[in-house]
Amino acid sequence: MTNRNLKHSIISLTVSRFSFNYISDNNTWCSFNDVSQLHSSTAFVIGLQHNWVYLIDHFGFLEDGTFKQRYLVADKHWKQPAGPILFYTGNEGDITWFCNNTGFMWETAAQLGAMLVFAEHRYYGESLPFGQDSYSDSKHLNYLTSEQALADFAVLIENLKSTLPGAQHSPVIAVGGSYGGMLSAWFRMKYPNIVVGALAASAPIWQFPGMVPCGDFYKIVTQDFARSGYNCDANIRKSWKAINNVTSTVSGLQWLSEEFNLCSPLKNVMDTVTFKNWLQETWVNLAMVDYPYEANFLQPLPPWPIQVVCKYLGFDSTVSDYELLHGVSQAAKIYYNYTGTSSCLNMSQTATGSLGYLGWFYQACTEMVMPMCTDGIQDMFEPEEWNFQAFSDECNAMFGVRPRADWAGTVYGGKDIASHSNIIFSNGGLDPWSAGGVNYNMTESLVSIVIPEGAHHLDLRYSNDHDPPAVRAARALEVKYFQKWISQAKKAPQTSEPNI
Amino acid sequence: MTNRNLKHSIISLTVSRFSFNYISDNNTWCSFNDVSQLHSSTAFVIGLQHNWVYLIDHFGFLEDGTFKQRYLVADKHWKQPAGPILFYTGNEGDITWFCNNTGFMWETAAQLGAMLVFAEHRYYGESLPFGQDSYSDSKHLNYLTSEQALADFAVLIENLKSTLPGAQHSPVIAVGGSYGGMLSAWFRMKYPNIVVGALAASAPIWQFPGMVPCGDFYKIVTQDFARSGYNCDANIRKSWKAINNVTSTVSGLQWLSEEFNLCSPLKNVMDTVTFKNWLQETWVNLAMVDYPYEANFLQPLPPWPIQVVCKYLGFDSTVSDYELLHGVSQAAKIYYNYTGTSSCLNMSQTATGSLGYLGWFYQACTEMVMPMCTDGIQDMFEPEEWNFQAFSDECNAMFGVRPRADWAGTVYGGKDIASHSNIIFSNGGLDPWSAGGVNYNMTESLVSIVIPEGAHHLDLRYSNDHDPPAVRAARALEVKYFQKWISQAKKAPQTSEPNI
Repeated sequence: MTNRNLKHSIISLTVSRFSFNYISDNNTWCSFNDVSQLHSSTAFVIGLQHNWVYLIDHFGFLEDGTFKQRYLVADKHWKQPAGPILFYTGNEGDITWFCNNTGFMWETAAQLGAMLVFAEHRYYGESLPFGQDSYSDSKHLNYLTSEQALADFAVLIENLKSTLPGAQHSPVIAVGGSYGGMLSAWFRMKYPNIVVGALAASAPIWQFPGMVPCGDFYKIVTQDFARSGYNCDANIRKSWKAINNVTSTVSGLQWLSEEFNLCSPLKNVMDTVTFKNWLQETWVNLAMVDYPYEANFLQPLPPWPIQVVCKYLGFDSTVSDYELLHGVSQAAKIYYNYTGTSSCLNMSQTATGSLGYLGWFYQACTEMVMPMCTDGIQDMFEPEEWNFQAFSDECNAMFGVRPRADWAGTVYGGKDIASHSNIIFSNGGLDPWSAGGVNYNMTESLVSIVIPEGAHHLDLRYSNDHDPPAVRAARALEVKYFQKWISQAKKAPQTSEPNI
Repeated sequence: MTNRNLKHSIISLTVSRFSFNYISDNNTWCSFNDVSQLHSSTAFVIGLQHNWVYLIDHFGFLEDGTFKQRYLVADKHWKQPAGPILFYTGNEGDITWFCNNTGFMWETAAQLGAMLVFAEHRYYGESLPFGQDSYSDSKHLNYLTSEQALADFAVLIENLKSTLPGAQHSPVIAVGGSYGGMLSAWFRMKYPNIVVGALAASAPIWQFPGMVPCGDFYKIVTQDFARSGYNCDANIRKSWKAINNVTSTVSGLQWLSEEFNLCSPLKNVMDTVTFKNWLQETWVNLAMVDYPYEANFLQPLPPWPIQVVCKYLGFDSTVSDYELLHGVSQAAKIYYNYTGTSSCLNMSQTATGSLGYLGWFYQACTEMVMPMCTDGIQDMFEPEEWNFQAFSDECNAMFGVRPRADWAGTVYGGKDIASHSNIIFSNGGLDPWSAGGVNYNMTESLVSIVIPEGAHHLDLRYSNDHDPPAVRAARALEVKYFQKWISQAKKAPQTSEPNI
């Protein structure tokens, strides 16, 4: 990776990794094509709201433009008045996709008598502050920050509570996964007046400079492969050199392109770099979605997909470069062509179109600075140091902005968050993003739930017969905390005598 | 007041009231003319810092301009390493003035072994983001918000802690009065990772729409006069009509101008409105600075100045308009000409030039929407309702911006702040701003200290032989809380088992 094209590496490594996990199930409750299932019997609003205005800039008064923020509401199970609201803090993509892939909320609504709200994050999906111009330049992108998104959520909730009959005293709980989980946690930290608690699933709130070792992420990816098949990680570690060897000749480039059935054949060394980045991203994606049951991602995947992949990577040390790369191609095709319907493998697409890559890229280039590195020893990748300056230069070239390495830690507290309350940090042991997560109980009300056999926020998904016991227990505990927070909220504020 | 010129009323009533209280004592520790007393024996920095950059916009990445923020440091008593830091969250004015008028911090430093830092609020004093252009238009004013100011403070403290030897583990306590007290409280709420606690003195964090009755402020002013002399409030209440009567003729206007020795004689009805606003502001200012000892405000004032003023306002109900207004003029001269050195009374100046009126006006026209009203019955003023729309139109005409009535409540929590911790809200019973303050213990660590005989943040001032016992006790209790927070901070974060 030392020769990696940084621009590509930013896209493929640092930026776009979130959320490849949101496997689209057949539940289309959140699709506008099938609104009936989402629609409430009491005719509450669903989908785009045209009547309420959302400020483009909450933190300045010069720009008083507004935009339409999309959100979805389901109140089938809501107990009026004052029944709780589960509020999904939308992340970097189309909100209907997150809505479809957060079955936990749907399955919990009845038990809690809760209304569900899924709020789309500004600059994603259909919530574009400047319409088609939103991404046109850094001036238009200037309002794409987590702080603005949290303010959107706060204003939306206050509007809902003041206008929906019966919602005035409804306690609101924030729920989110991945970046959405970070937003949930931060929402509770910054607006405890708006949400009584938060479930931050697979939220790497510490994947920022100086908080966790930059190599832990890839170590976990590597461990997932190491535990899933004989020599699996070792052979992937070997594969990079094999790729370098084979692609050193024109005939080798051609062979590899054919072996992988690439849509665009490799032509030179730069293409080889792209190819390795694409493979690396593939292994990371697999680690994120290593779920115990068949799931429909971009393409369908089998249960425990890494185990299936590793069946093709169980070579002994005597394997030749060509044999090894044949195995790697078979493995990659599990991820990209499990059903055999792809005519070729497209290196430019590794995940769903429901995610807003460019938007997340901009966020990574501004606030969401998440150092990553590899050493090739404790992980199975080519060594690459974290180079902030190079990253910053790349961001400047692309967007005309530079990342602020320390800002997220300053504004969201870094490791110094113990004074906050009522946040569940759930993490999966298989999920590389758990490296940047909170994996211990900080206080009695800042708690960690670890799901050893869990990939990226497995707990937020619909329940499944093949769910490991730990995720069932996690969901049950999460609901218990929800109930505790709801019950706390219903008690009037206590006035107590200071004790000093 | 129903006919009041709104533009004037905004300036004189809603906006400029804060901080007329910062009486300049003879302590010039914070003056650059006498730096020696401020200067630390260990040669730490004082005054303008040229080396560190402060972002003009913390919440967007398009604008990466920087400015110099002024702050003052005194470390004479600081115990390295890890001695605490008392951090004054500067409000709407020159920081040296606040520094001079916050004797409590100076007197506490030795006891706590604390370093003192006084940080100037952006757009005030010498901390001008765009230099002389900072106030040129709403575009340049766009970064004048409390959120930006808090971010400045956070970044400054992180810089200090990472660069000053021995400061890395120093617990920081925010201290502020008036708007600075609001900032202190909000700083702890929003950045508990940066400050372990806050003393919010005379901080009307609830003087926002829908939180407290708009008339309470003026009720307290009225009570101060009612308790300070026979018929004092009643005669002020009568004076407005007397002014209307007398100024209905040209000769009456002339008589009144001469009686008050006004620098600019009254010429018409509009001038009469201005005159009444100016008088109303005078009574409010007196309520804010009704201190028990002689103090040097804009002009020097006697101990308990309202009692002195009321000596001229003890008429029976039979008093004539002219007699009454003669008494009012004598009273006003106590405030404006106690020492007899003023050649005339200037209606355009009611308080120190160390305050940034225009900046605070802009803040009131954006975030700091503080409804005020009078009814002439429970208060001694002409009735005037709170009219948000008129206020908003006035702001729009002046700055091209409109206030957001609900934003402060959304972002800073309004009355729903019980989940926060370690904030002292101190208020004086004589201080009209206590109407918007927190006057009861919300939780064990969100505590109220009421000083019945106290005017506007008396507790922050230097101690004085004439201090009432309540303010001595208040200061002692505040220091006790400081010590408790410092001791809490020194303990490592506890990891506890959740209890559910």
